[in-house]
Amino acid sequence: MLVKSKVKYIQSLGQKKFRQQEGVFVAEGPKLVKELLTEHSDSVVEVFALKNWIDENKRVTINCNLSEITEAELEKISQLTTPNQVVAVVKHFNTIKPFAEKGKFILALDGIQDPGNMGTIIRIADWFGVQHIVCSQDSADWYNPKAVQSTMGSIGRVNVFYTSLGKWLEEQNDALIYAAVLGGEDLTKMQQPAGGVIVIGNESKGISEEVLKFCNASITIPQKGKAESLNAAVATGIILSHFCK
Amino acid sequence: MLVKSKVKYIQSLGQKKFRQQEGVFVAEGPKLVKELLTEHSDSVVEVFALKNWIDENKRVTINCNLSEITEAELEKISQLTTPNQVVAVVKHFNTIKPFAEKGKFILALDGIQDPGNMGTIIRIADWFGVQHIVCSQDSADWYNPKAVQSTMGSIGRVNVFYTSLGKWLEEQNDALIYAAVLGGEDLTKMQQPAGGVIVIGNESKGISEEVLKFCNASITIPQKGKAESLNAAVATGIILSHFCK
Repeated sequence: MLVKSKVKYIQSLGQKKFRQQEGVFVAEGPKLVKELLTEHSDSVVEVFALKNWIDENKRVTINCNLSEITEAELEKISQLTTPNQVVAVVKHFNTIKPFAEKGKFILALDGIQDPGNMGTIIRIADWFGVQHIVCSQDSADWYNPKAVQSTMGSIGRVNVFYTSLGKWLEEQNDALIYAAVLGGEDLTKMQQPAGGVIVIGNESKGISEEVLKFCNASITIPQKGKAESLNAAVATGIILSHFCK
Repeated sequence: MLVKSKVKYIQSLGQKKFRQQEGVFVAEGPKLVKELLTEHSDSVVEVFALKNWIDENKRVTINCNLSEITEAELEKISQLTTPNQVVAVVKHFNTIKPFAEKGKFILALDGIQDPGNMGTIIRIADWFGVQHIVCSQDSADWYNPKAVQSTMGSIGRVNVFYTSLGKWLEEQNDALIYAAVLGGEDLTKMQQPAGGVIVIGNESKGISEEVLKFCNASITIPQKGKAESLNAAVATGIILSHFCK
């Protein structure tokens, strides 16, 4: 049985303030929890699961407290519309401040607001082998439940570092810093660059002036139809697919 | 003032059954509603808006009933987490059964489940000038409120046709039909095709056997890192960015 205080504690982790205070986040669903237990077993603090999940995962090494819960209890602690068997409380990952290097790409996110976009971008980075994402302080929290869900398991495989983005860009001496904007160089006609920083702006306002002044190149996904813009995660995927061939 | 029955009616349009019965859907937010009033004024049946929206849109021609509502009323009829000034009831668009032609691309969606993905794919199609999307009957409804929202105004500019996808593919004589799969031809190394049908599968199960048998080519977005897959909308964007250069 789950005591009331535990239910309250897990529910509170839906809020960034409490996640930061406690240094943990919530991961849900069989696929994600299994990946975390396999790849980051030391980070998993506590697991709450239905009986059938426990029965099916007898071979998975679990080095932390595992509690069997009922469907009703799962419903209470889950942040998902459709709760899915298992919930884990996981320690924040150690992140590092990355630096631009030749031959590597770094994503820089300037005020991405939607947690779903944040998670999807982490998943995209993981697909294309981009190891580092640098985010402005006002970007969505990557430990937000929707973001965690959208990473589809990539959350433990990409380094996501929050900082003052302008300051960080200023420190990247000689690096090519590409602003994804409307009216830049046609991405599909460019020579493939040998690394650099790719800056993706806010969903509605784009890249801020403060960040734009540190960009020394601009790229655009050519528009053929009438839509005014593309979703930020979709744009990120398209750019990386042309740069990381 | 909004009468109770009207509130109930608009709320019921959150469900596909009632949308189909009534032949209408709900569009929200200043940007989307203004685009619909400008590009499809005959389709807009009724508009409900806060006073400030009405004051700001005095120059927009509105050929239907316009009701001023309060914030509290807006909250009741809105499907958004953050209601945004205006809600419109809009007639379903006339759609046509498209046919593959040389020089044009058609998207075929096989069981896309997430309404957000559906809307984002419509937006992507509109960006790349793809005019037709053919969906299997079990794909998410493009008039679902989340889908409508995710189109960001592209909803009236793309023809979305639901049908038995296998049957439809069978009718596309001689057309190149590309299955987006793992382990196909590297998209980034292919010669740019002169049109064809691009089939995108379900988010977790991919393309069904029944549809796959009508595909005569297969394409893959090369994976460099460890993520198992890409989001369906992101994959669609990447493929079109390489095909519609």
